[in-house]
Amino acid sequence: MTSLPPPVGRSLDVVCIGMAIVDVLTHTDDAFLDHHAMVKGAMDLIDTERALRIYDAMPPAIEISGGSAANTAVGVASFGRRAAFIGKVADDDLGAVFAHDIRAAGVAYATDAVTGAAAAAGTARCLILVTPDAQRTMNTHLGVAASLQASDVDADLIASASVLYIEGYLWDDPGAIGVIRTAIDTARAAGTRVAFSLSDGFCVDRHRQEFLRLVAADVDILFANEVEICSLYETSEFASAAAQVSDHVAIACLTRSEQGSVVVAGGERIVVPAVPAELVDTTGAGDLYAAGFLSGWSSGLSIEDAARMGSLAAGEVISHLGARPQSPLSDLWRVHR
Amino acid sequence: MTSLPPPVGRSLDVVCIGMAIVDVLTHTDDAFLDHHAMVKGAMDLIDTERALRIYDAMPPAIEISGGSAANTAVGVASFGRRAAFIGKVADDDLGAVFAHDIRAAGVAYATDAVTGAAAAAGTARCLILVTPDAQRTMNTHLGVAASLQASDVDADLIASASVLYIEGYLWDDPGAIGVIRTAIDTARAAGTRVAFSLSDGFCVDRHRQEFLRLVAADVDILFANEVEICSLYETSEFASAAAQVSDHVAIACLTRSEQGSVVVAGGERIVVPAVPAELVDTTGAGDLYAAGFLSGWSSGLSIEDAARMGSLAAGEVISHLGARPQSPLSDLWRVHR
Repeated sequence: MTSLPPPVGRSLDVVCIGMAIVDVLTHTDDAFLDHHAMVKGAMDLIDTERALRIYDAMPPAIEISGGSAANTAVGVASFGRRAAFIGKVADDDLGAVFAHDIRAAGVAYATDAVTGAAAAAGTARCLILVTPDAQRTMNTHLGVAASLQASDVDADLIASASVLYIEGYLWDDPGAIGVIRTAIDTARAAGTRVAFSLSDGFCVDRHRQEFLRLVAADVDILFANEVEICSLYETSEFASAAAQVSDHVAIACLTRSEQGSVVVAGGERIVVPAVPAELVDTTGAGDLYAAGFLSGWSSGLSIEDAARMGSLAAGEVISHLGARPQSPLSDLWRVHR
Repeated sequence: MTSLPPPVGRSLDVVCIGMAIVDVLTHTDDAFLDHHAMVKGAMDLIDTERALRIYDAMPPAIEISGGSAANTAVGVASFGRRAAFIGKVADDDLGAVFAHDIRAAGVAYATDAVTGAAAAAGTARCLILVTPDAQRTMNTHLGVAASLQASDVDADLIASASVLYIEGYLWDDPGAIGVIRTAIDTARAAGTRVAFSLSDGFCVDRHRQEFLRLVAADVDILFANEVEICSLYETSEFASAAAQVSDHVAIACLTRSEQGSVVVAGGERIVVPAVPAELVDTTGAGDLYAAGFLSGWSSGLSIEDAARMGSLAAGEVISHLGARPQSPLSDLWRVHR
């Protein structure tokens, strides 16, 4: 049992805020990563010039909606829970693709698209290189995704949800930090729990002090993989990082790839195995783990069952190309619970 | 042996002209097709309003470059042969996606994108619904693809190729017919062989008289499936259609899905089996058969071996989602020849 129950009587389970991104996904080899000086498995922010240079060199690709917190929202909806998403697209082809896909997945999405001259920056795209080991290396051109405005954040929506889920990547948009601060304050005042994902090891490097303050002061449920949590506390010892985070948040979900996850909550450490899967593309594994955990936790399941839902969702999404589930996760859970 | 050898000393193997289209591909059930009054397996031309209505109702999708003759060009390049493509996109996100993907696949592509006010019609997209039986049902919004201009057709390029390959769908762009006529005349004057695909049964219905004249007067190599060739000659008897077409063209490649293909050439009928494949999505099967056949024929192989290359390429493309090969066909052919 957790010491942090979900709030009762909410009309929405999870509202996610993040970068609205279309993934441009292809297979390459390690030599391609080396040639373009990429760090395998990481997410790099790139400018327009580098985006064009990498894209020109990339093999034929597929376009498929992504974005970390957006993937989580889709996962929550796929479990049959009620999800909403807040994030910026431009009124271009890829913006229409993003909006269509997230709504068609059952997620409420009402953020206004950027129009006019400001839309020229374009809907964000992430050039994702999947290597033969199924690892994904991400190069994100943020475009208009880094232009979240105070007016985009619906206070009533946040107050109506059990959880506000925020991705760390948002701190890469300096203009958004104040907006996110307001969203967090709204959540806390309304009793909406605050969940936060550290997103990426390099992202933690870029924003460590802000993340440490945020985790200690405002976060109820933290999601991080081993690299990210160790980066946050600047330690190479997972056990040390896990011990430190337990003082800061009510629930910390620490994912460890094929070793499953460790959930630190209320003084307990709950270890849940990964769900075996044929590994095709790791894109979205962390996002979908969070979706499963929050779906379970917000419906009042035990921490262990919520973590098992996380493992199940992560296992589904790594078994195919793309970062969103291809089968209804509610059906999978019915079979595997 | 065929009575129609490829021309010698060409710097290009196949130049393809067709609609430049990005496929918007998703899985649905038969009820979705019924609800939207679609004919399973067919290609329907739709206006903007119907495109929006269908897209709004569609599940999340992936975007992946397509277009019938464009897929054929990519297949030819995948066999290691030299291919070029001529077709119109707009200077929008999907146009950039199309141009990137076909060039990254090794196909020469230099058609100018439509810019300015005329670009508002957008790059063509085809809403493809894949049903559980792996059949694809296509709804094409042509946008700027139906605006091929005389200036887009490079006479030197056509004269440098062994084969000019034309898709029947082009006749759905009334403005393009004169342009295509010029391209065919250029080919014939230069000794470039003219290959033609009937594209779709309903397309044959729309343009039967023009197609009959074209096949009799100008086509050297014809590609058609059973439905299309029977529609052309308005018969329900495949044998009758095959007999009639043999009087009109030097080589007729008639594909019959899992029954393989029948090539009628120089008074002979060569029957080549299909390559067994796990059927996932039939999109592109005919396009890739043509790619394989033309790759083989243009390199001087026998009709039978060329048809076997066609079967191999079709087998590869139906084993995954999307209409372009995911593995180099030259490698597959090395193993399976």
